[in-house]
Amino acid sequence: MVLFRRSLGDILRSRRTDLGLTLREVSGAARVSLGYISEIERGQKEASSELLASLCDALEMPLSDVLREVADAVALEEAALVAAAPTPIAPRRAPVVAASAA
Amino acid sequence: MVLFRRSLGDILRSRRTDLGLTLREVSGAARVSLGYISEIERGQKEASSELLASLCDALEMPLSDVLREVADAVALEEAALVAAAPTPIAPRRAPVVAASAA
Repeated sequence: MVLFRRSLGDILRSRRTDLGLTLREVSGAARVSLGYISEIERGQKEASSELLASLCDALEMPLSDVLREVADAVALEEAALVAAAPTPIAPRRAPVVAASAA
Repeated sequence: MVLFRRSLGDILRSRRTDLGLTLREVSGAARVSLGYISEIERGQKEASSELLASLCDALEMPLSDVLREVADAVALEEAALVAAAPTPIAPRRAPVVAASAA
């Protein structure tokens, strides 16, 4: 199952490190506890919509951009799941049995 | 503030009605209470990632597509907010006062 919070956490952490910000700095800017942000980044906690908006502000990234990046990551995961799924075997037709009048 | 759950609710409801499904049918397919789905569609409750995955399955729409549609809707909201924001007034330069030797 592809989980939104996991891809979201990856994108948020990636953006934070791209900006060279520490968890503490984002925690201060977004007014969210450091431990909570850390759990969100690891995909262990769901972020409420209000918290997500605060994090986007702190990371100077519009929510729409975050969601597009998450959508792209999720699409890759979905494709990988399809590729890994066992190929369904076409059911063999039952052999035609000639009717015999015994 | 642009809230993820509001746009998500709109997209999920729109998809359900496009498919001609009732809340009861989606509730049965996704194994989520009818009232909860209704609250999610109205943007009043956050959907957990597991619930979101179940809803996507029930609505036969990949999560990545849902997120792309939400991202597009959020981008429109963001643009509307920027357009509605008051134009900042450029600060006037202080008038130059000629130095006078009194």
